[in-house]
Amino acid sequence: MTKQVAIVLAGCGVFDGSEIYETTLTLLRLDQLGIGYRCFAPDVAQHHVINHLTQEPVEGEQRNVLLESARLARGDISPITELDADDFDAVIVPGGFGVAKNLSDFADQGDSMQVLESVKEALVGFKEEAKPIGLMCIAPVLVPRLLGEGVAVTIGHDPSVSGAISAMGGLHRSCGVEDIVVDHEHRVVTTPAYMLATRISEAATGIFKLVDRIDEMMG
Amino acid sequence: MTKQVAIVLAGCGVFDGSEIYETTLTLLRLDQLGIGYRCFAPDVAQHHVINHLTQEPVEGEQRNVLLESARLARGDISPITELDADDFDAVIVPGGFGVAKNLSDFADQGDSMQVLESVKEALVGFKEEAKPIGLMCIAPVLVPRLLGEGVAVTIGHDPSVSGAISAMGGLHRSCGVEDIVVDHEHRVVTTPAYMLATRISEAATGIFKLVDRIDEMMG
Repeated sequence: MTKQVAIVLAGCGVFDGSEIYETTLTLLRLDQLGIGYRCFAPDVAQHHVINHLTQEPVEGEQRNVLLESARLARGDISPITELDADDFDAVIVPGGFGVAKNLSDFADQGDSMQVLESVKEALVGFKEEAKPIGLMCIAPVLVPRLLGEGVAVTIGHDPSVSGAISAMGGLHRSCGVEDIVVDHEHRVVTTPAYMLATRISEAATGIFKLVDRIDEMMG
Repeated sequence: MTKQVAIVLAGCGVFDGSEIYETTLTLLRLDQLGIGYRCFAPDVAQHHVINHLTQEPVEGEQRNVLLESARLARGDISPITELDADDFDAVIVPGGFGVAKNLSDFADQGDSMQVLESVKEALVGFKEEAKPIGLMCIAPVLVPRLLGEGVAVTIGHDPSVSGAISAMGGLHRSCGVEDIVVDHEHRVVTTPAYMLATRISEAATGIFKLVDRIDEMMG
């Protein structure tokens, strides 16, 4: 039977949603390995809409996280409330500011952040069943609130984000863009991706390593 | 000196913009080969906005092609009026319905279609200087109007689209998803990508071949 991986999205675009290249490269590698996948996103309003040319918020414009994430999934996506860990062998969360704005309020609240309840409920099943969890870029900042204290992750070496992870009870390890950090005990794999990448091929190397490791851990 | 390729975008999302995976895979391969690139898009209103979950148009919503394309370029993009063929060694146009709705009116007009004037002006320089031109998915439908009659291209084997290409004076060759069609005389390379792909890895194989061939043709 084909292994199946759930992908959790947060919109479409680095500044207010999921990082497009990180998501695409994750799906590419899964498919190259013959692993099936399905995308999920919360059916909630985006925190805001960012003009990706000026990086300024667009006043008065409102978008929905599930509908924008559907662009990244070519329409093939479900609300995250339908994500049941029993149906999947692993879960991967790409990065992008949407993780810190739509899946959580880290962008505003820092180490006082909360994770969206529907995301917590979906992810906790993977933890309980000891199924591998991959996160990239800024997404590892969710780990202390999602999975509890003492889980080793990386977001590269940004001192303010790594400090916040530590303050919430996480363990942060510095890591290069083309490498991964693996917490074997908690079955969590992370890579810096666009927290550090200056070229798409650099991000690809780390993301492909993450997916390959998740594949090994699914057995 | 590093070779440089211009990428022409049409929004962000398969149903009303540029196809996200096709664009990302193009940029990945260029970067893996050490080729520089810059993205361009017309600064015009989108034909419409499609809800990518239901595939229905969203009434009353308006988006701008350049601003949505900026999502695909992580903010690093210019208006297509600034694209000068002298600055680049080749140009690539990914697919997605945006090509048939925003860069041209093929989706409405079929073989009576017109190409956006700013796109024509930008592309004609590549033709005049005999620089390689790559197009994928639905984008080869632009070729008869952009480059004139008698240029061989593929969009896979869709009879209605290939018929329209023939009706406009183009030459259509059937082609599998993992292959390319090369018109050596006119220096045009095309691949079906998501006109045929059912998996992202299939699209990647054809797109990587297209980029590799463009690389060879740049010399």
